[in-house]
Amino acid sequence: MVYGLARRELRPRVPLRPGEGEKHHLTSLEGLAALSLDALSSVAYGPEAIVLALVAAGTGALSATLPITLAITFLLAALVISYGQVIAVHPDGGGAYAVSKAELGPASSLLAAASLVVDYVLTVAVSLAAGADALASAFPVLAHDKLLVCLVGLALLTGVNLRGVTESARVLMLPTVLFIVAILGIVVLGLLRPHPAAVVGTAQSFPAHETLGLLLILKAFSSGCSALTGVEAIANAVPTFRTPRFKRAQRTELMLGALLGIMLVGLAVLIRRDRVAPRGGVTVLAQLTAGAYGTGWAYYATNIIVTLVLLLAANTSFGGLPVLMSLLARDHRLPHLFGLRAERPVYRYGVVALALMAALLLIAVNADTHRLIPLFAIGVFIGFTLSQLGLVRHWARQKPEGWKRRALINGTGALLTTLAGVILLTTKFLEGAWVVVIAVPLMMLLFARIQRYYTEVGKELGLGRIPGPPDRRTASLVIVPLGDVSKLARHAIGAALALGDEVVAVAVQADPDKTRALREAWERWDPGVRLDIIDSPHRSLVQPIVDYVQRVAHDGDGRQIAVLIPEVEPRHRRYEILQNQRGLLLATVLRSRTDVVVCMLPYRLRL
Amino acid sequence: MVYGLARRELRPRVPLRPGEGEKHHLTSLEGLAALSLDALSSVAYGPEAIVLALVAAGTGALSATLPITLAITFLLAALVISYGQVIAVHPDGGGAYAVSKAELGPASSLLAAASLVVDYVLTVAVSLAAGADALASAFPVLAHDKLLVCLVGLALLTGVNLRGVTESARVLMLPTVLFIVAILGIVVLGLLRPHPAAVVGTAQSFPAHETLGLLLILKAFSSGCSALTGVEAIANAVPTFRTPRFKRAQRTELMLGALLGIMLVGLAVLIRRDRVAPRGGVTVLAQLTAGAYGTGWAYYATNIIVTLVLLLAANTSFGGLPVLMSLLARDHRLPHLFGLRAERPVYRYGVVALALMAALLLIAVNADTHRLIPLFAIGVFIGFTLSQLGLVRHWARQKPEGWKRRALINGTGALLTTLAGVILLTTKFLEGAWVVVIAVPLMMLLFARIQRYYTEVGKELGLGRIPGPPDRRTASLVIVPLGDVSKLARHAIGAALALGDEVVAVAVQADPDKTRALREAWERWDPGVRLDIIDSPHRSLVQPIVDYVQRVAHDGDGRQIAVLIPEVEPRHRRYEILQNQRGLLLATVLRSRTDVVVCMLPYRLRL
Repeated sequence: MVYGLARRELRPRVPLRPGEGEKHHLTSLEGLAALSLDALSSVAYGPEAIVLALVAAGTGALSATLPITLAITFLLAALVISYGQVIAVHPDGGGAYAVSKAELGPASSLLAAASLVVDYVLTVAVSLAAGADALASAFPVLAHDKLLVCLVGLALLTGVNLRGVTESARVLMLPTVLFIVAILGIVVLGLLRPHPAAVVGTAQSFPAHETLGLLLILKAFSSGCSALTGVEAIANAVPTFRTPRFKRAQRTELMLGALLGIMLVGLAVLIRRDRVAPRGGVTVLAQLTAGAYGTGWAYYATNIIVTLVLLLAANTSFGGLPVLMSLLARDHRLPHLFGLRAERPVYRYGVVALALMAALLLIAVNADTHRLIPLFAIGVFIGFTLSQLGLVRHWARQKPEGWKRRALINGTGALLTTLAGVILLTTKFLEGAWVVVIAVPLMMLLFARIQRYYTEVGKELGLGRIPGPPDRRTASLVIVPLGDVSKLARHAIGAALALGDEVVAVAVQADPDKTRALREAWERWDPGVRLDIIDSPHRSLVQPIVDYVQRVAHDGDGRQIAVLIPEVEPRHRRYEILQNQRGLLLATVLRSRTDVVVCMLPYRLRL
Repeated sequence: MVYGLARRELRPRVPLRPGEGEKHHLTSLEGLAALSLDALSSVAYGPEAIVLALVAAGTGALSATLPITLAITFLLAALVISYGQVIAVHPDGGGAYAVSKAELGPASSLLAAASLVVDYVLTVAVSLAAGADALASAFPVLAHDKLLVCLVGLALLTGVNLRGVTESARVLMLPTVLFIVAILGIVVLGLLRPHPAAVVGTAQSFPAHETLGLLLILKAFSSGCSALTGVEAIANAVPTFRTPRFKRAQRTELMLGALLGIMLVGLAVLIRRDRVAPRGGVTVLAQLTAGAYGTGWAYYATNIIVTLVLLLAANTSFGGLPVLMSLLARDHRLPHLFGLRAERPVYRYGVVALALMAALLLIAVNADTHRLIPLFAIGVFIGFTLSQLGLVRHWARQKPEGWKRRALINGTGALLTTLAGVILLTTKFLEGAWVVVIAVPLMMLLFARIQRYYTEVGKELGLGRIPGPPDRRTASLVIVPLGDVSKLARHAIGAALALGDEVVAVAVQADPDKTRALREAWERWDPGVRLDIIDSPHRSLVQPIVDYVQRVAHDGDGRQIAVLIPEVEPRHRRYEILQNQRGLLLATVLRSRTDVVVCMLPYRLRL
């Protein structure tokens, strides 16, 4: 699922602004294609989660699937109406973080941010795990290698995102349409048939070891709520719609709600009628697929489409997390570095971090979708609740016409999602929700600590106050570390002479013969600069130079000291490991241990 | 096993030189402790490899273990005598790489280097895998988690080596003595008992699906040769002995040969007498241990000592590979960076690279020792052969008294090891030796390519020729990228004024309000330097500055252009990710895309 942020910017590197390039903006239908995959793909694991919870009370209990699904659909309707109002109030694409920051204050926004991060990671993990289940339903040979399938999928996503991807709504249109047609086809064809066309998977026995009491129903309900993840994506991406922006977005939200509701209820009716219990080796959705289409090509095609759509759903997190991180960085809650999300190396950190966290999670649960579900929906529901609460606060402050009715709608939404969240947390605590309960506060603490650090640094740097006039140093001395007399040395000494009032070259040598040869060559060259040679019998290079620089800086007479390190820059990137590395190492150590200016001078090779 | 280089320098960061700190040098016995672990620990997998090869012809074929072991011991004797001569000729600790470079020419030394690298990696992998086998023999609960045990051991070694370790012969003395006592105890006690004291492991049936022909005997022989790995370590570490250096080293080599020979033959006699066949869950050595000591505390203690000694054997590679890499770097066959092995960050690259390669190998064979053995001994035998051949060439060139006899000894050694190597390669090709056959030439090619690159760069830089006089630029311009008016700006402008004839500050802003505020603050501060503000609506920082610098450099009138990037240096390392990263990113991009001098100016926080 997608939410919390304008994570579906279609050109993530250069965010579109309202009014800019209208023809690149989305119509309602395009919006549905671009922004609904996450939510719709939840039908691959949501209904199954209900069935799996209920079957603990024996196969007879499965008839409760329909009423539970109806309750979830009711919650869905409330969310869709609530988000319709979010769209109207935050046409800039609020998102839980932005809304709670604006309306609820710092603590709530930290909570929103932390649950969003948890959620981006889980979206990747759950979508991949469910995708592997779908693929293994079609190709049973993969049944024992689901973790491997997930990790291969993750590697694929990571690779694509590291190279940089420009998503386009039009590319997503085809898989979305195919997916909707396939799922609705299952519902319609399945209901038309008097009994399932085919049965797949191996039968399993389910002795009833619990009774169908309230607790079990609540468990099934909270598992099924994973089907709701993703419905907030549209509200977060209002700026990507074509004008009339918020009307189109609201229409798309309604379409998404209707489609998802029809799918969920339709599948639940089929599950009830055909008494679908979990079977070995296949998903519940795959059983329903076989029941409607038989086991011919349509069965394979549907499972492949479901896999593809889940992979695309996982991909949305890779677009979303960097946006969230950049917002947090601008609020001084993550390293400022991440504010530069448009810069490729920074963007890559985010991609790799997300991939690693998802990989760890997948390995920890051995790619078992059902062990991830308890962790999944909690973050989402925190986001839902904070968005609605923010709107209630908004209405109470602004008091526009009809604000009471509006506040009632959002308040009901908040109440329902809080209730669902509490049910989720209590019934799923031991099954994995405790991980989220630990991770979220830790992350909030981290964000708060970072923010405090930046505040203190700002004070120390005197940000916002006019400093004294710059110190005018009397003169400057530039030290040039060299290995040989060569064109590189010539280039470096030239640059140093332009920057320094005085220049001195320094070389480190382990071998007396080489020292003598270097001394002679220097005298023959005679560049008008002194050469100091440091003896280093242990062949260490960095430490002797650092010691030398510290000595010079100590008796520097208040001069500005700079070390100018010439580096050979090969033309081809593949040669980079062969050059410069010693210079970089020296620069790093000098920067951490001395207060001198460290300069790098590139010398470009033709090679 | 250890060989090829003085890899057992006892203080790897500061190599001892002959004559330096005599009391830190080794006596013969200390040398045995420090340098024999690798070779002696081979008894944990060598005899087992023979048994496993022979059992393909049924348990009756196991009686061939003794004659095959005798043949291997004969080869051992030849190697020990040969290496006695290597010690005398190369008291600086020749090693296969150094000897073949000095005596045989570039191609042979590349071959030696590549097989050494392969071998360091395999030493780690085989020792860890055999260690996991030994541990699982004592604690069967680990039998299904051998890969995990190996990876934990590897992580341990990597961690210790990343922190830096000063090995001491005295620390190694205790495990070595315990190991020798334990193994000799097995032989003596085992032979004294009329029949095994206890039998461990689960029986397995071995239908004879091959006949005991020449091919099978050669296979068993070549598998058993893995027991010889490590006997060259002493010859490589002569400089670490106390004077009379080479006498002591030769004595140690003889002791090692005698001990290893006695152990191998003793264990083979026991295997033959007790008809020891492979059993499930335990190693052959563990079976012999139980046969001699029963299954009481001595059984556990012995297996734990064997595990520990194998772990220490794996550790030797972590000391050895960086030494080899630094020699290769000095010969321009690896990035020059690795020549700085004494510098901690560089040393760490080697440790991490070795750990990764060993981990991949262990994962690839699922920590199965017997799948690693075919890859293992080939590299070793290439090293053996090249060392002996080098000595033959040495004798033929120098022609000292008795050179013909000496050349005959080394020639016989070379012939035998070549023969063993060819047998290894042909009988084990499909079982894994092909990996080495592919890896070694690829690595040789890589080394040669790197060397060619450095030669060409040297030409381009005019190394060895006196360059023209340095260009004297007319003047210099220093550009200072800034974000705010603060103490940091004051510090940076001050340094820039000392270095440049002209200074200009530049800021990137996305927000018109902030631009105005910055402009005002600058005017109030009035540091006597122009401020250029670049508009960047897309919040990109790096690209606008690079464009600006390129523009300035283009109309620079031949002035030397420098960019001075101030960076906030936090006092605590843990805050580093919070600072500087944007400056570093900017510096990296400027260095790769422009020809200006890039300067970093640290500003130290008290925080």
